[in-house]
Amino acid sequence: MSRIYLDNAATTPLDPAVLEAMMPYFTTHFGNPSSIYSYGRETRMAIENARKTVAKILNAHPAEIFFTSGGTESSNTAITASVRNLGCKHIISSPIEHHATLHTVQHLHKTGEAQLSYVQLLPNGQVDIAHLEQLLAGSTEKCLVTLMHANNEIGNMIDIKAVGELCKKYNAIFHSDTVQTVGHFPFDLRNTHVHFITGAGHKFHGPKGVGILYVNENIKIEPFVHGGSQERNMRAGTENLYGIVGFAKALELATANYEQDSTYIKGLKKYMMEQLLQQIPGVAFNGDQLGNCLYAVLSVNFPKTEKSEMLLFNLDINNICASGGSACTSGADIGSYVIRAINPNSDQVTIRFSFSKHNTTAEIDQVIAKLKEII
Amino acid sequence: MSRIYLDNAATTPLDPAVLEAMMPYFTTHFGNPSSIYSYGRETRMAIENARKTVAKILNAHPAEIFFTSGGTESSNTAITASVRNLGCKHIISSPIEHHATLHTVQHLHKTGEAQLSYVQLLPNGQVDIAHLEQLLAGSTEKCLVTLMHANNEIGNMIDIKAVGELCKKYNAIFHSDTVQTVGHFPFDLRNTHVHFITGAGHKFHGPKGVGILYVNENIKIEPFVHGGSQERNMRAGTENLYGIVGFAKALELATANYEQDSTYIKGLKKYMMEQLLQQIPGVAFNGDQLGNCLYAVLSVNFPKTEKSEMLLFNLDINNICASGGSACTSGADIGSYVIRAINPNSDQVTIRFSFSKHNTTAEIDQVIAKLKEII
Repeated sequence: MSRIYLDNAATTPLDPAVLEAMMPYFTTHFGNPSSIYSYGRETRMAIENARKTVAKILNAHPAEIFFTSGGTESSNTAITASVRNLGCKHIISSPIEHHATLHTVQHLHKTGEAQLSYVQLLPNGQVDIAHLEQLLAGSTEKCLVTLMHANNEIGNMIDIKAVGELCKKYNAIFHSDTVQTVGHFPFDLRNTHVHFITGAGHKFHGPKGVGILYVNENIKIEPFVHGGSQERNMRAGTENLYGIVGFAKALELATANYEQDSTYIKGLKKYMMEQLLQQIPGVAFNGDQLGNCLYAVLSVNFPKTEKSEMLLFNLDINNICASGGSACTSGADIGSYVIRAINPNSDQVTIRFSFSKHNTTAEIDQVIAKLKEII
Repeated sequence: MSRIYLDNAATTPLDPAVLEAMMPYFTTHFGNPSSIYSYGRETRMAIENARKTVAKILNAHPAEIFFTSGGTESSNTAITASVRNLGCKHIISSPIEHHATLHTVQHLHKTGEAQLSYVQLLPNGQVDIAHLEQLLAGSTEKCLVTLMHANNEIGNMIDIKAVGELCKKYNAIFHSDTVQTVGHFPFDLRNTHVHFITGAGHKFHGPKGVGILYVNENIKIEPFVHGGSQERNMRAGTENLYGIVGFAKALELATANYEQDSTYIKGLKKYMMEQLLQQIPGVAFNGDQLGNCLYAVLSVNFPKTEKSEMLLFNLDINNICASGGSACTSGADIGSYVIRAINPNSDQVTIRFSFSKHNTTAEIDQVIAKLKEII
């Protein structure tokens, strides 16, 4: 049985058209983009064109787009700068953020640079907006609100415009980890009150090791990585040229086919939900799966039995790739902190299935059949 | 006239064999290295094998090698950790360090986290070791010594073992920016008293956007980038898988052919020095060119005339790539701070030529002929 890859929220295969766009920069176009001669100018131009492409798609200004080594570095930069450069001495976050956010805010809290509050979650795992407003209204310090656009494990999404307006009302800085949504949803940053968003190429069939940080033009921050004058003095270090070219190409392709791909993937998810409910007794879904949720992520609870505890392992043996929590924490083996936060008394086995345009209903049928067999 | 590339200290063309080693990870082997199933295990193994390769070549332990986004991030991590985690409240550096070091130490000085001293330079641009010892002996605080192994503009090298022994004597932490020497010289880290060294793949025919940080096993630092548990909790973010594989392959190739390549490049540099002295009146060389110096870098002073001021521009028109200072600062156009530091009253025009195994004496002849024509 050939491999069935249902872990597209962890990473996606690189689109061959993206690799093709990157190839000249691995071969003939190798100049250092900071060099002023011909070889350098052609690679500098590739980076600036990539920046323009990304900015246009997100409806931002090119000067607001900075290329980084990935979503994690982008979130570290935004959060640290908010505290150290923008005067935010109170961070409001949620207990189900990605570790790129959680570990950064916890670090800044530990060093005494900022106080830290967690917004409460509703029973479906959505952020309690009323509680967020209470926290903002009650704060004596300038706040940084850092809430992810879509949760990578359960798929829940915030209304980024509504949270932005709330931040505006209370003069808070707003950072949103959008790693699961850039390349998956349209953005309109000129008309969204958000100061920082992030993106990672490998989440939408682009390359690993490259990301973006959007910094709203109305704020001014210091670099996170010091050194040369790359990225207009904002992110030092010789640019990951191929990565940057690939990021822009992947975002371009994702945007061009957005309607078609998202409709198709939504259909796959719906089909899998129906089949699971019909064929596996006792399954349930985590998060707001019928509400504001990623169309590509499905978090499934299976009743805990001797067999279901080995589920992920048995899926792997059968060449089916899915995950227990996020990839970034899967080495840890202590279960998912996200699932614990929304469902502390759960004695179920959670599997995240996440889809891409390359998956098929036939694959889902095979997975369902295998799940029935295992359980 | 086809392009002549004499700016290999800025970046080098990727070796086709390195690209070939990277290719499977752009296509079939795309799993997130943190994922526990087959796709993840094969990419995790690629990363761990790369780490072992690098460690073996540098005579270090694999647990001492961390992959980063490049030399700049590596130096930022080492310097910041020395101050924030290792108790170094006094930084001793030199005025001719790369900006990745200089801007980082200046930032930590500005925030009041560390005092900052610069070691004096000898007339040939070499670090004055007697003055370094004076600074160490006179310090009331624990010191971080950060001195680059080889200067990227003039090529001067420190005796890394001797500086290490001095740091040991005064219980100082020692960081050396080795971006110009990893992949160019043998290292023996088990027998060198250094706490941190750095490397960047693209300086030795590897990929851009990837580097290493060596952290001596006897010290314990906190991560610079917070988030997932990648790199044993030391550098969060989904790994630049292709970059890491490419880094190790490039280092392997560089090491295998080190004797042959370095002898050849040394010959090219010697030939160019001789030809310049014979054919261009008034040329001189910056740095310790006949002493402890990079074999790949030649910094040349030309007498300032109306024509020589446009030298770099005219070389570019003639398809010859060389640089005024480092690539990382070449956008700035205010001349080289390194040259100003070693030669404050210079009214000469400085061009850095830097060689690789791909250059030929025929190319050097062409460049010399063109220089004569321009000047």
